[in-house]
Amino acid sequence: MTYSIEIERSTAPKTKPQEDQLGFGKHFTDHMFVVDYETGKGWHAPRIVPYQGITLDPAAKIFHYGQSVFEGLKAYRAEDGRLLLFRPQDNFKRLNLSNERMHMPEIDADLAMAGLQELIRIDSGWIPSAPGTSLYIRPFVIATEPSLGVAPSAKYQFLIIMSPVGAYYAEGINPVKIYVESGYVRAVKGGVGTAKTAGNYASGLKAQEEAAKRGCAQVLWLDGVHRKYIEEVGSMNVFFYIDGKVVTPALSGSILDGITRRSVIALLKEWNIPVEERTISVDELFEAHERGALTEAFGSGTAAVISPIGALYSENGDIEIGGGKTGELAAKVYDTLTGIQYGRVADPFGWTYELQVAAVK
Amino acid sequence: MTYSIEIERSTAPKTKPQEDQLGFGKHFTDHMFVVDYETGKGWHAPRIVPYQGITLDPAAKIFHYGQSVFEGLKAYRAEDGRLLLFRPQDNFKRLNLSNERMHMPEIDADLAMAGLQELIRIDSGWIPSAPGTSLYIRPFVIATEPSLGVAPSAKYQFLIIMSPVGAYYAEGINPVKIYVESGYVRAVKGGVGTAKTAGNYASGLKAQEEAAKRGCAQVLWLDGVHRKYIEEVGSMNVFFYIDGKVVTPALSGSILDGITRRSVIALLKEWNIPVEERTISVDELFEAHERGALTEAFGSGTAAVISPIGALYSENGDIEIGGGKTGELAAKVYDTLTGIQYGRVADPFGWTYELQVAAVK
Ligand SMILES: Cc1ncc(COP(=O)(O)O)c(C=O)c1O
Ligand SMILES: Cc1ncc(COP(=O)(O)O)c(C=O)c1O
Repeated sequence: MTYSIEIERSTAPKTKPQEDQLGFGKHFTDHMFVVDYETGKGWHAPRIVPYQGITLDPAAKIFHYGQSVFEGLKAYRAEDGRLLLFRPQDNFKRLNLSNERMHMPEIDADLAMAGLQELIRIDSGWIPSAPGTSLYIRPFVIATEPSLGVAPSAKYQFLIIMSPVGAYYAEGINPVKIYVESGYVRAVKGGVGTAKTAGNYASGLKAQEEAAKRGCAQVLWLDGVHRKYIEEVGSMNVFFYIDGKVVTPALSGSILDGITRRSVIALLKEWNIPVEERTISVDELFEAHERGALTEAFGSGTAAVISPIGALYSENGDIEIGGGKTGELAAKVYDTLTGIQYGRVADPFGWTYELQVAAVK
Repeated sequence: MTYSIEIERSTAPKTKPQEDQLGFGKHFTDHMFVVDYETGKGWHAPRIVPYQGITLDPAAKIFHYGQSVFEGLKAYRAEDGRLLLFRPQDNFKRLNLSNERMHMPEIDADLAMAGLQELIRIDSGWIPSAPGTSLYIRPFVIATEPSLGVAPSAKYQFLIIMSPVGAYYAEGINPVKIYVESGYVRAVKGGVGTAKTAGNYASGLKAQEEAAKRGCAQVLWLDGVHRKYIEEVGSMNVFFYIDGKVVTPALSGSILDGITRRSVIALLKEWNIPVEERTISVDELFEAHERGALTEAFGSGTAAVISPIGALYSENGDIEIGGGKTGELAAKVYDTLTGIQYGRVADPFGWTYELQVAAVK
């Protein structure tokens, strides 16, 4: 199916930032993709327009009741010039699961893919090429109806914006310290922890501050019911290498079904390394560490891909993992995944999606 | 302390809607109050401008990570012409508690009050006078920094918008049916349930839909840990009249500290009716009903003031409360509170706040 996407080109293209000074999510490309929704009319008027401010009524529901969902994925420039996405359809599928949970209308994933491809075609000059850099893609949906009744919005806007981002590990992959959070809770079963919705992130900022105070990069979130089972680390899924098996929290209704998580599990299975998706308590972790069985721990997510955990700080003491160094398994997963993403390594899984972009600059 | 609030008057005042067709939060007055915040600079540039769209960068953090807080209060036109607010300082205090939880900067409550008074002075012609109508006031703060890093925003905007609203009980106060929600959870201890933040409302929409499917007006929320203790009803606090005592869930870290709730408790104490703030389970409620001890139940909140509960529907059966009619106590609390709010009844508590508004039309 083809979609008629109207295109208005920017007449004032921005100066592109230097590739060694990109940072994350600070610079945006020249254009954005926009689609409107209205009850009764459905999604309509897909268009690409110059990147610009959104004007909303101050009573727009996004400001008051937080109906919003988003996604995050990246476009990679391969050394041979190909432009690659990583499992993009999975992102739009998950966007729709989030939409469902937040009582928001399903988007047409094919239209979203068509819009994304067209947007990348127009802004392909923004995909950086320095090692480790990429183009971060942020699709999101917000409720725009101006009305203060607590009810689903009758109007929404779906947008895709894009930001060239720097290498996550400019100085080589490096383990971080993590703080086991015992007071704040990220999400609970029955809540919205499985959805990629804005409120889940604002609610974590205080805990993140507590972690930072203790010299930690991120929070290890525990479940809200028993306060002992591990859920996620910061905004990443988490893996532990114990007794030669890899354990990761099961998708129990309060954590995000990460696309990197899925990919890590698939790789481990391919390598015949046993993986267990189950509940795992902090106590089990500390106990495994005590008997020398906890050899590695790492987070997984689109931004960092793999983030090795070198130490866990907690109210009941601190432990060092893998001598505070990046473990062999974490490194191998990282190299393989990034290898596939950048087209350096064969992709037996069909994860890469090659963009057909006639050279547009 | 006086604040210098710049004022830009609307040159195109809107036609005011008819007072019998106001609804809730659909029409907005001619002006709004705005203050900006930037790290290092603090809150600055307080101003009143014509009600108009807000233009934000599509990367503004409010759209992605949901840092936002809000309040809701009302201005009432007394029969003798006085313009009254109800415990407005409590709203700005609570706004700051919400700000704290969401890692957002504290506002100056005095500046907020000054802005609100000036705004009401300019738009005082918008305060309706038909019985039961009022001017709903919505102060809110949103994160505006355009950056996709998950971190507290460096920029915010504080706004106050106002909406003339119709009588909540146009046909007299009437009990509603409530659905005891056993799957979805509103909030859990350690989360953000005590804050008035946008995400808490979007997350309840699916449950609200489930309630509506069963002919119920609202959801009775249970706690996220044991799934049996009562928390709130819809976006209201909740009271049960059992054995001549009034029981309301304690402020346990997952419910909102409602200003109407506080006022109801103060009234009951004044009337020498025992009030217990404690955990109360659904089982206790059904058991009390069985032995004929549950005589009344009602919700409390700014919008409805008091909302009598005539029946509870649940997976384990339905019960009718007080013969499905508004109870005597609910009616008395409602009459007294609205009496104080509209200046018909003496206010021994110092809750009313008279606006000094020279007649501006
Ligand atoms: C809360 C949360 N958990 C986990 C992840 C990892 O998901 P993915 O691997 O799809 O990026 C993300 C997103 O990056 C997230 O926001
Ligand atoms: C979740 C929630 N609970 C309770 C209340 C009642 O609070 P108040 O009495 O201050 O209006 C509100 C707000 O109206 C609310 O949003």
